Amino acid sequence: MRSFSGRDILSLRDFERADYLRIFDVADELQSYATDRRDTDLLKNKTLLTAFYQPSTRTRLATEAAMHRLGGHVLGFSDAKMTRAGDFYQESIKDTVHMLEYYGDVIAMRHFQMGAPTEAARWSTVPVINCGDGWGEHPTQVLTDLYTTLGEKGTIDGLTFALVGDMRMRTMHSILYAFSQFDVKAYVISPIEMALEPEFKAQLESRNVQFEEAPSIEEVIHEVDVIYMEPVVQPDYTLSRQEKAETYARTPPAYQVTRDLLREGKSDVIVLHSLPRMDELAPDVDCTRHARYWTEAFNGVVMRMALLALVLGAME
Amino acid sequence: MRSFSGRDILSLRDFERADYLRIFDVADELQSYATDRRDTDLLKNKTLLTAFYQPSTRTRLATEAAMHRLGGHVLGFSDAKMTRAGDFYQESIKDTVHMLEYYGDVIAMRHFQMGAPTEAARWSTVPVINCGDGWGEHPTQVLTDLYTTLGEKGTIDGLTFALVGDMRMRTMHSILYAFSQFDVKAYVISPIEMALEPEFKAQLESRNVQFEEAPSIEEVIHEVDVIYMEPVVQPDYTLSRQEKAETYARTPPAYQVTRDLLREGKSDVIVLHSLPRMDELAPDVDCTRHARYWTEAFNGVVMRMALLALVLGAME
Amino acid sequence: MRSFSGRDILSLRDFERADYLRIFDVADELQSYATDRRDTDLLKNKTLLTAFYQPSTRTRLATEAAMHRLGGHVLGFSDAKMTRAGDFYQESIKDTVHMLEYYGDVIAMRHFQMGAPTEAARWSTVPVINCGDGWGEHPTQVLTDLYTTLGEKGTIDGLTFALVGDMRMRTMHSILYAFSQFDVKAYVISPIEMALEPEFKAQLESRNVQFEEAPSIEEVIHEVDVIYMEPVVQPDYTLSRQEKAETYARTPPAYQVTRDLLREGKSDVIVLHSLPRMDELAPDVDCTRHARYWTEAFNGVVMRMALLALVLGAME
Repeated sequence: MRSFSGRDILSLRDFERADYLRIFDVADELQSYATDRRDTDLLKNKTLLTAFYQPSTRTRLATEAAMHRLGGHVLGFSDAKMTRAGDFYQESIKDTVHMLEYYGDVIAMRHFQMGAPTEAARWSTVPVINCGDGWGEHPTQVLTDLYTTLGEKGTIDGLTFALVGDMRMRTMHSILYAFSQFDVKAYVISPIEMALEPEFKAQLESRNVQFEEAPSIEEVIHEVDVIYMEPVVQPDYTLSRQEKAETYARTPPAYQVTRDLLREGKSDVIVLHSLPRMDELAPDVDCTRHARYWTEAFNGVVMRMALLALVLGAME
Repeated sequence: MRSFSGRDILSLRDFERADYLRIFDVADELQSYATDRRDTDLLKNKTLLTAFYQPSTRTRLATEAAMHRLGGHVLGFSDAKMTRAGDFYQESIKDTVHMLEYYGDVIAMRHFQMGAPTEAARWSTVPVINCGDGWGEHPTQVLTDLYTTLGEKGTIDGLTFALVGDMRMRTMHSILYAFSQFDVKAYVISPIEMALEPEFKAQLESRNVQFEEAPSIEEVIHEVDVIYMEPVVQPDYTLSRQEKAETYARTPPAYQVTRDLLREGKSDVIVLHSLPRMDELAPDVDCTRHARYWTEAFNGVVMRMALLALVLGAME
Repeated sequence: MRSFSGRDILSLRDFERADYLRIFDVADELQSYATDRRDTDLLKNKTLLTAFYQPSTRTRLATEAAMHRLGGHVLGFSDAKMTRAGDFYQESIKDTVHMLEYYGDVIAMRHFQMGAPTEAARWSTVPVINCGDGWGEHPTQVLTDLYTTLGEKGTIDGLTFALVGDMRMRTMHSILYAFSQFDVKAYVISPIEMALEPEFKAQLESRNVQFEEAPSIEEVIHEVDVIYMEPVVQPDYTLSRQEKAETYARTPPAYQVTRDLLREGKSDVIVLHSLPRMDELAPDVDCTRHARYWTEAFNGVVMRMALLALVLGAME
């Protein structure tokens, strides 16, 4: 296995099984700090640079909380409009990176353009962590989700997942790449216009990922161990307030999870959702034994602690 | 007295006299750190989460400065637009809180909706501090103001206050609730359309708060010990630049404090204003012996130190 | 030489030679911390307040990184819109400063109005550092640039500079003031409508600054040791996307630096640019031996460490 020290976390496409297992082990080792709310000084003197060209709450705060917990500093920007780097006259990623690399020891980047973190890593002398790049990938979120699954189920191998939502989204790309390293089966459920892209499907097939498209959650609910959700109705910021109200609650039942639906499923099926949600996940699911999305929020900090500690060489 | 450890600071409605006295004592104990600009490590390993859905300068910075002074970390967002939590598709307070509670040990929330911090506290496993909620309350500011009064006058009991400004504002609500626990008299001076709401008045009466409406500051200036001010002209961000200029300096004399007016008052009357000001408080008051609004800024840090230390159980 | 302890850094107009030398010495002393990415606790317990009324990436992050490296805290705002201090109803600098001075030990201010930091320093009991004020000055950037020059050339005296760009910009003002204390010659190259203002020229002449206007870089390239650049095409945020695209790449060749041009110059000529760039500095210069603009980014942190340590009295 390649060492993680100095390594970029850009995509799960080329992650090997041993990589996942190592990350999960380190997360296990660090978890008690988050549980007990104690700091370590593993990353004392180190600085995390958050370069968020798009707004984010969970990913940014979880990453910053992780860095603080490890004893390090946090610097950065969280909105492209707040920086001269972020408008039309946007400077090249190369120019930006040749500034950021002197201000910190690791760069966590969210960008509206797919591939921007990879371009950053090309120029950076410090590790770059992709915190979501357009329609690209979202590896730290999916590592959190798989770690949550492992914690709840004791295994990832042997499980059946229902992936529900917009299959063009970055989390769906990352999790399907990840499935190539585990013995899992995935049902893929989305509106037709949000289906897996043909080229991406071809990649999955060449990697022997076991996936199958299904028309609705209901169709497969009796079989699945993990429901992994994303909204299919995306916020459209260009609409008027009135139009927003009208489109808000429009998720077709085929892509919705409700308490009633879960009654038809396995007794121990769990629901993951990286949040925020629209109406695809009914609030009355929150107080069922199936909900695990708040566990994901907790694990989000643990996973970023593991990744930061690994890429900065504080854990081997 | 209920312990403050783990307690939310949402409203002064149900604060008891002993609560105020305890808070003021703790503030006294911590004040020297602010005066000498020394840090403590009382809140080492603890993280403050600032969830500011509305812009704020003083309250946010004072709270963050307090947390740093106590040795803790600060994380958060300071503008709803910077977070996916803050737009029309705003996620429920419940969902947001079930993320924030894992990222920090105490949540300081400012929100444009009255009651939002109370809703947050309903779901949060960590204490929530209301840093201003719409037309609701602003307890940390008013605690700062009362602490400043105590420091300057040696007592709160026995004083006569003139409350001047828009009586529908959150600071006015909080200070009038607080008056139920002290032997003070309040003159309430506002334009008719900004008068105390009838239901709120009824609450004050049922709590034996001594208050009396007056037509102008001038009418009562000879009697009062403390002038407590808020603007009556509110910034209207929907106006054109020209219209803004025209409405800017429009505070009627009845609600203005000037150097001339203060000459008619008690020799030791003090002026409090949480700032920023429009034209209701003349700049030439700044260099009189009456001005105490910059002392409030200093005490703003001390008070937040006391509150953070108390709710996190670092002081009893 | 005046001590730097407690001193404001507002302008280079009245900086004396000994001031520069002292700052460069302190920067030399602190540089290894930045090189080795180690923290000191020189400014433990101290808080930097960043009051950025205009967006900034490099200056703000370099200053914050410097403060962290020195063991201190950082607080502030980085966009006027995020604060009630920043709109039309903007409160006076005096009112803002009488808040900020209680929240921190040094104020780093960027402002869209020339003179705002000087006005702040008038009221502040803590040192104020000008991080760029409208068309005024940008002392911390120019100190970084001169320090970079010194590091690369071993001297500032005896060098010939080409200053290229908009001569009304704050960096140009600061560097030309600085030249009054060194034995340097400056060629000044700008479009006619961006030429040095007559009154400013008169000031330079009265200070015996050796400068001469030239029509193009090419004209003087064989003579110069340092090319100091700023864009001549300024981002115009009021344009449509289409218009932006059309004006983007419009720098006339007279004010552009390319690899071809550098071949005509001295073998050891260096190029400085505070970035971000438009098209005045061709990307193919990046991998020549002449480029030093990324060294400036590194030195930006070192220089702010030196300035913070000096004005807070941690280094003498």
